[in-house]
Amino acid sequence: MNSPLQYDSYLELERLLACQHLASDAHGRPAHDELLFIVTHQAYELWFKVILHELESVIRLFDAERIEGGAVCIAADRLERVTRIQSLLIEQMKVLETMAPPDYLDFREFLFPASGFQSLQYRLIETRLGLKPEQRLLYNQFAYHTRVPVAHQDILKKAEEQPSLYSLVERWLERMPFVASGEFDFVRRFSEAVTNMIGNERETVLADASLDEKRKQVQLEELERTTETFGSLLSSELHEEMLRTGRRRMSHKASISALMIFLYREQPALHARYRILSLLVSIDTLFTTWRYSHSLVVHRMLGRKIGTGGSSGHHYLVSTAENHKVFTDLMEISTFLLPHIALPALPPRLVRDLGFHHSI
Amino acid sequence: MNSPLQYDSYLELERLLACQHLASDAHGRPAHDELLFIVTHQAYELWFKVILHELESVIRLFDAERIEGGAVCIAADRLERVTRIQSLLIEQMKVLETMAPPDYLDFREFLFPASGFQSLQYRLIETRLGLKPEQRLLYNQFAYHTRVPVAHQDILKKAEEQPSLYSLVERWLERMPFVASGEFDFVRRFSEAVTNMIGNERETVLADASLDEKRKQVQLEELERTTETFGSLLSSELHEEMLRTGRRRMSHKASISALMIFLYREQPALHARYRILSLLVSIDTLFTTWRYSHSLVVHRMLGRKIGTGGSSGHHYLVSTAENHKVFTDLMEISTFLLPHIALPALPPRLVRDLGFHHSI
Amino acid sequence: MNSPLQYDSYLELERLLACQHLASDAHGRPAHDELLFIVTHQAYELWFKVILHELESVIRLFDAERIEGGAVCIAADRLERVTRIQSLLIEQMKVLETMAPPDYLDFREFLFPASGFQSLQYRLIETRLGLKPEQRLLYNQFAYHTRVPVAHQDILKKAEEQPSLYSLVERWLERMPFVASGEFDFVRRFSEAVTNMIGNERETVLADASLDEKRKQVQLEELERTTETFGSLLSSELHEEMLRTGRRRMSHKASISALMIFLYREQPALHARYRILSLLVSIDTLFTTWRYSHSLVVHRMLGRKIGTGGSSGHHYLVSTAENHKVFTDLMEISTFLLPHIALPALPPRLVRDLGFHHSI
Amino acid sequence: MNSPLQYDSYLELERLLACQHLASDAHGRPAHDELLFIVTHQAYELWFKVILHELESVIRLFDAERIEGGAVCIAADRLERVTRIQSLLIEQMKVLETMAPPDYLDFREFLFPASGFQSLQYRLIETRLGLKPEQRLLYNQFAYHTRVPVAHQDILKKAEEQPSLYSLVERWLERMPFVASGEFDFVRRFSEAVTNMIGNERETVLADASLDEKRKQVQLEELERTTETFGSLLSSELHEEMLRTGRRRMSHKASISALMIFLYREQPALHARYRILSLLVSIDTLFTTWRYSHSLVVHRMLGRKIGTGGSSGHHYLVSTAENHKVFTDLMEISTFLLPHIALPALPPRLVRDLGFHHSI
Repeated sequence: MNSPLQYDSYLELERLLACQHLASDAHGRPAHDELLFIVTHQAYELWFKVILHELESVIRLFDAERIEGGAVCIAADRLERVTRIQSLLIEQMKVLETMAPPDYLDFREFLFPASGFQSLQYRLIETRLGLKPEQRLLYNQFAYHTRVPVAHQDILKKAEEQPSLYSLVERWLERMPFVASGEFDFVRRFSEAVTNMIGNERETVLADASLDEKRKQVQLEELERTTETFGSLLSSELHEEMLRTGRRRMSHKASISALMIFLYREQPALHARYRILSLLVSIDTLFTTWRYSHSLVVHRMLGRKIGTGGSSGHHYLVSTAENHKVFTDLMEISTFLLPHIALPALPPRLVRDLGFHHSI
Repeated sequence: MNSPLQYDSYLELERLLACQHLASDAHGRPAHDELLFIVTHQAYELWFKVILHELESVIRLFDAERIEGGAVCIAADRLERVTRIQSLLIEQMKVLETMAPPDYLDFREFLFPASGFQSLQYRLIETRLGLKPEQRLLYNQFAYHTRVPVAHQDILKKAEEQPSLYSLVERWLERMPFVASGEFDFVRRFSEAVTNMIGNERETVLADASLDEKRKQVQLEELERTTETFGSLLSSELHEEMLRTGRRRMSHKASISALMIFLYREQPALHARYRILSLLVSIDTLFTTWRYSHSLVVHRMLGRKIGTGGSSGHHYLVSTAENHKVFTDLMEISTFLLPHIALPALPPRLVRDLGFHHSI
Repeated sequence: MNSPLQYDSYLELERLLACQHLASDAHGRPAHDELLFIVTHQAYELWFKVILHELESVIRLFDAERIEGGAVCIAADRLERVTRIQSLLIEQMKVLETMAPPDYLDFREFLFPASGFQSLQYRLIETRLGLKPEQRLLYNQFAYHTRVPVAHQDILKKAEEQPSLYSLVERWLERMPFVASGEFDFVRRFSEAVTNMIGNERETVLADASLDEKRKQVQLEELERTTETFGSLLSSELHEEMLRTGRRRMSHKASISALMIFLYREQPALHARYRILSLLVSIDTLFTTWRYSHSLVVHRMLGRKIGTGGSSGHHYLVSTAENHKVFTDLMEISTFLLPHIALPALPPRLVRDLGFHHSI
Repeated sequence: MNSPLQYDSYLELERLLACQHLASDAHGRPAHDELLFIVTHQAYELWFKVILHELESVIRLFDAERIEGGAVCIAADRLERVTRIQSLLIEQMKVLETMAPPDYLDFREFLFPASGFQSLQYRLIETRLGLKPEQRLLYNQFAYHTRVPVAHQDILKKAEEQPSLYSLVERWLERMPFVASGEFDFVRRFSEAVTNMIGNERETVLADASLDEKRKQVQLEELERTTETFGSLLSSELHEEMLRTGRRRMSHKASISALMIFLYREQPALHARYRILSLLVSIDTLFTTWRYSHSLVVHRMLGRKIGTGGSSGHHYLVSTAENHKVFTDLMEISTFLLPHIALPALPPRLVRDLGFHHSI
């Protein structure tokens, strides 16, 4: 690289800006808005490339037996970047919305049967995050794979065989040392706290003279259900049952670590982990929001017409918005939180272990 | 008003900034994040007040036998303002998301049974837009009214009895003069265009040697369904059937006007109307997005816990996101669009009528 | 185009996604964040292409002796799209900000002397909007042209020779028929209104017993200055003087039309024009904001280091933020507004002329 | 608190929603847009209250001799919340921009002489961050204090006397233990790295046969200046000179710690600190952006009219945008960064000290 670098050549603008060929031009009926349509989708793909780059780097950081604290911090920064890009993708939808539906109609027929569902990079992102193939919605009664070109199927299959971010994070959580350390057994102590809290609430109900028998009964049954809910996570047997029946995905050990991280995130070593977990939930949420916004734009552009890819459009997209989540178990950890005041105190030795080496 | 106006007194800051009393303080267990929670909701209510102010002014502009062109322009500007405020409401959700779920738990119990579902102003906005009482979801098996204080029920009832923006816009569309003017009968000409288009496509299918009989059959059936779809709007009898069975809400005359407006929006008098219709669809879409984002935040904060108002939280909210739309028929006009090239040309006299008085 | 269109080939993804070659890779010192840096700039360039496409189409619409009302409406929609894209460009800065300054340092040296100042498309946008060559800041004591490759200089020169959006809008405003129509002479009537208003205020001051002589004098002098300010626009001689001395750019006739448009925008024919003027001011403002945000990011990444293009970075950028505005005269029309209550009423005949042909 | 909490009473909506009284109503000339104007400013003040709440809590966390790692993490989360609120404040400007300038004119005269410059909470935020009184711009030739009601002056004065976030962060940086620990002397090692780097570059220049004498001279002089720049920070004497002449504010010890934090932020104990420093720069940047956006809106609404508070409007605001920064020295640390490859390696013992106590 001897000649001085120029902006144009560095960004390869000559090629980049020659990638926009209007199908409507090719059909001799140029449609003004098609350039917007193409560039919007190309910008999505460019950003998908960055998202994949960041996710792969985070996966590499987590694909190790020992993950140093510094790696966790850097991983968090990169996941945060992913969330910023996702916010931008959602904003982009507002630009596409400036296209009036009749103007879309002017070139839509030329696009058939191309469809956004065919984006390889987007599928890779889902797969690398940890979406399971069986989670992908059946799509017009065919498995999604039938819509995917063979070359892409191979790439996706290979991606599915490698450890996903989900699986590596699960393993990392399972290895977390602080859950049962020395005299402190987190599950036992937390279970006691739950029992105490519910016991107190039961006594309050029983002693409440203002409640008639029927309402007392209702409230006691509700407390019973709360006990069962907590049990379904705290008891490894009941949790296994949830896994077997597909109501949860994350292993018992990993889930317990996640719970502890959420509850004691003011401890430095847990705070770094909390940032990771919280960002993973954000990534899930932002893709959900993006898919939902996408479904609304499609509804607006096409009404109840069938999508170019043959999909039923809006309704299919609303379903994927809800069903393509990966980190649901982390989001639902909130079900099992207690107020700080009800939490068991950590022993000083554990607090020290959770701090920085050289305390500040 | 003799003394010079001061910033503080103009904005009544002394009172405004004294409206934040933490329930957690009152219970002797101050929770840092409760101020954020209160202010977020108060900011929502302040903006709701502006939205109502704008909607009421637009309703007044449309509540007339003759609506001058200037009124339509001003109404569009005000509806556009509503959409900007809604975008802000959605952004606000990102601030609330900075609250970690365990921190919410620290004051959540003190809020019971208060619930955002009780916002009178939000219900008024929905009602003034035109949400029908029966559209409101049954909520924990009780009609929503049972959750609403009696005083609010009266206010809502009165609001329901007044003409909504939906009903006034429908009436205004019904009165639109250009649909059948002089020799030009829009429905007849448009129906011919549809028939032509489908006829051409049928011939193409029949002549296509590359298709086997079975695939030909499939494609011909699809064209049949397309014919039926167009018929369900263009035939007033079939449209009445859609109304009777609750699959549409907007009258035949109004729907036809809306279709014409979408198709010929480059004519000035229709463009002003198009802005109105397009903004109404945006308002619907933005509230849908806001409700959906809200549901995601609730899911994140509470997992599968029951909401303070006793609601099942996330799932209830996802349902309202989908079901509380008012202008669905306008959004679905897109189902019936044709490419510009297939549209019947407007006669010069009509073009003149659709222009400004003094052409530019 | 016989084979069915696929998503990948339609978007030319193979080429598009092969345009990201890291300079740090080429130097054998791969830097993780360089991909983000490249894609951010490529996304800017893709959007610049759309902005140019929209601006050129608006320029074509305005480059005519007669501009129909429909053309004005469509032009406004396209300018609104430009503003949405600009908002996205500003949001994009937030993604770039996730790059930590020391990570930028890891590949910055390889980029020398490439610089964002070299973006041809951005310069074309400025030029097509109507930025005058002499407005471009001297840049490190050399005219900007010396930094621009010869091939680009030719393209820019040709672009400068064609009518810009600014010049076409100015001509279109000059031709506006309503300023002096029939018995109504806008400048004369508006001047009277100004004189009345200031006369009333003078009397109030003179009659105000609470003011001592000195303060009276101050206030009377201020009213004098207000009179002069209005005069500098309303008198064509004084306005010419402003033009000669470079304090204004827009011709007297065009400025007067713009003033009338701002004051009576509730008239349909003026409202369509108001949307255009208001959007042009927004476009100016959004580019100003973008340049300013850019300057802040550069300051953050480099502190007081010199930019790769040899620029003094932050301070240069702050200057261009302020000085590369095109529609300042439209923004400053606000200087000359009066409250609606003080405005001369339009005669009924003019009101009719300003309405739609077929009143609603 | 015996009665069940209701949404309305919890949020004190009755009072909150009764704080909007239009000055234009009081003058008998109701202006539609004044409600938007009032609510926009009230929403700002509500959010300012939250920002102050968060800043005060961070100040309390930092106002201690020992600051535990957990406190730093929580402080970072709260500062991040402040940045999200600031982004919202900037978005809010877009809502205000929907007000057409002539509509503002309809109520503007009634507001005189109230002015946004009088916001006590905003001034308190600046002061608590660490803005020095002498930094506040002279305002129409009077010190800003003359515009501030006496009661507010007292509050501000008291706030100025308490330790600001700036001063506490500076002290915390000065105490950072890792800068000179055991055998590792950061300043010495970093100075060597700078000397090496510049030495290598000098040799490259001298050996470059393609350069004529004059260009060699230019490049050697530039390297000389770079040496001086680094020296002005690394030498405590030269740094003191910068402080004396007002070109820097932050003490030498604190600046050196900040530099080390930026350079080695992949170490956990430094990463937590880096988040704080980076967020402080963001807070400065976002307020700068907000003030700048504000100046653009004022310019748009008023052109060159004088502001209600008697200010020269736009130009005053542009100046405060630039001059009211607090953490400039942190932003300009970037001036002194080297690529990672040129950095001195940290000794293993220091790496251990910078990690978590219980490595992962």
